[in-house]
Amino acid sequence: MKLATYKDGSRDGQLVVVSRDLSQAHYANGIATRLQQVLDDWNFLSPQLEELYTTLNHGRARHAFAFDPKLCMAPLPRAYQWLSGSAYLSHQERLHQARGAELPDGLSREPLLQRGASDAFLGPCEPARFAAEAMGPDFEAQLAVITGDVALGASPAQALEGVRLLALVNDWTLRQLMQAEAGRGLLQCKPATAFGPVAVTPDELGEAWKGGRVHLNLQTQWNGRKVGQCEAGEGMHFHFGELIAHLARTRALRAGSIVGSGAVSPRDASRGYGCIAEKRALETLEHGEPRTEYMKFGDSIRMEMKGLDGQSLFGAIDQDVLSLHEAAEPDSATAD
Amino acid sequence: MKLATYKDGSRDGQLVVVSRDLSQAHYANGIATRLQQVLDDWNFLSPQLEELYTTLNHGRARHAFAFDPKLCMAPLPRAYQWLSGSAYLSHQERLHQARGAELPDGLSREPLLQRGASDAFLGPCEPARFAAEAMGPDFEAQLAVITGDVALGASPAQALEGVRLLALVNDWTLRQLMQAEAGRGLLQCKPATAFGPVAVTPDELGEAWKGGRVHLNLQTQWNGRKVGQCEAGEGMHFHFGELIAHLARTRALRAGSIVGSGAVSPRDASRGYGCIAEKRALETLEHGEPRTEYMKFGDSIRMEMKGLDGQSLFGAIDQDVLSLHEAAEPDSATAD
Repeated sequence: MKLATYKDGSRDGQLVVVSRDLSQAHYANGIATRLQQVLDDWNFLSPQLEELYTTLNHGRARHAFAFDPKLCMAPLPRAYQWLSGSAYLSHQERLHQARGAELPDGLSREPLLQRGASDAFLGPCEPARFAAEAMGPDFEAQLAVITGDVALGASPAQALEGVRLLALVNDWTLRQLMQAEAGRGLLQCKPATAFGPVAVTPDELGEAWKGGRVHLNLQTQWNGRKVGQCEAGEGMHFHFGELIAHLARTRALRAGSIVGSGAVSPRDASRGYGCIAEKRALETLEHGEPRTEYMKFGDSIRMEMKGLDGQSLFGAIDQDVLSLHEAAEPDSATAD
Repeated sequence: MKLATYKDGSRDGQLVVVSRDLSQAHYANGIATRLQQVLDDWNFLSPQLEELYTTLNHGRARHAFAFDPKLCMAPLPRAYQWLSGSAYLSHQERLHQARGAELPDGLSREPLLQRGASDAFLGPCEPARFAAEAMGPDFEAQLAVITGDVALGASPAQALEGVRLLALVNDWTLRQLMQAEAGRGLLQCKPATAFGPVAVTPDELGEAWKGGRVHLNLQTQWNGRKVGQCEAGEGMHFHFGELIAHLARTRALRAGSIVGSGAVSPRDASRGYGCIAEKRALETLEHGEPRTEYMKFGDSIRMEMKGLDGQSLFGAIDQDVLSLHEAAEPDSATAD
């Protein structure tokens, strides 16, 4: 099943069910108005949504309308918990190597996760606004799971059973502010995170969802140029169940917790990159210095993942980078 | 005005207005059922709650009932963002000095804040449950503010205008797990945080709310013995507006964000302590080793702050430390 949240002027938006091919949508009212409600009461509400999803896929939903990702907020426009892991070790290795820094101790033994702000996420087509290009805006392509309740002490296998939905994430980072926050917790260098249009139940991935990892390519296009075609499964050292179990060691996780994989990073660097920082690290290792600059105002970033059937799984994240007070392109709000 | 959230079996509970002397309460339904709703729409809803509060204080509210803090959840049982600062520099100084460690760079220049889990907080009288005493459970007395929307780039003075409510906090810490997480972000060593029974608007503090600080004593009793009588204002190096403005440098804060002061720490160590870690640091500096052990199963902790009129401002946090599967004392759930 695929779920999205439509803008309606409120902070939490309106829950819609979206057809598998992302062409049609249907308001879920009568069942639930917000996604958090569904996560809070999953066993009761999700079967009703599944039924609507089936009807919609068969073209028999009465009040279906054309689905428009530009009208989407993040599937959970705000959440009670959001953490991003560092599950792709090659990402950490390349960044540390380029800086001539030691890898943090135990990186492959225990997952490293970083809490992020979850009071307001960006929708898939909302511009990312920053005060200055000099802050070094960088995209960060990753996948995330949205959990139900997970018990204290859950094993990785039990934790995986708590996965309700998967989502596509662009975890914006202001790289030039990062160094100043090293060892202090990343706050200012992590502005609002963006999410893909729909969150999907794991069954939507079929065989590609295996062992707590997603074995599909995450494509990244920067200003229309393909820069990454990263297989998200193979390089993911800790699977999602291991990331969640790490968090659940001393306290339960409650429904609606979002846990991200960290920036995807292909073991094979010829497959491109999921964030500019990694490209710059590779350049530094090869040429002694980075050659690619961070994003500029007016740049665009597009992320998408296709399923085994070749169809877009989550819809695309498609964002422009703008300065704080710059108006968005008028047509970017209304048409493709 | 004083607001609390009563348990009703749901995750968000029921909003109640509580009289100034904490003796009476009244459901806020008809106005709002949850505190987050009020924060989302403060200018419209808070005047209606204020009106009910006045009626309640005059003993004229029709359906008032005796207020019982044991029936309280945290005022916000879950929140979209929770950070704890390290605004009391003497706390940091003592802990680092005792470890023979260097103070983090720029500690007095820029606030240090740590994101915490906000998917489920503990109510004021709920037991704190841990898997093992060996984890070193420690209380941490602090104050927090709950904000409305705060604009990106807000100055400390503007940020202070975003403060909607103040709350009393016990930010539980598992000290023996902390070292292993140093430099990795504090996740496992930070179990669920507890909140005092009521959150209060700043006007409830009168002259004691000054310059973004609370100039009142925070009392801490451990197993019935007074261990701290910490003046919360004087040692608070960064005021709440400065903590919030630091967070708002690159992104707006949305309504319902909770920002804590960090463990209160009196400059004058004879006033006691707000967490055991600080007591142990003082012992280490004096005797070469700590003499006070962390909390044991069966221990209790009580925190309270009295206003200028001598009345309890937030009600008391009164928690027992229990092992994971131990039943709570039957009478602790029903009587004092």
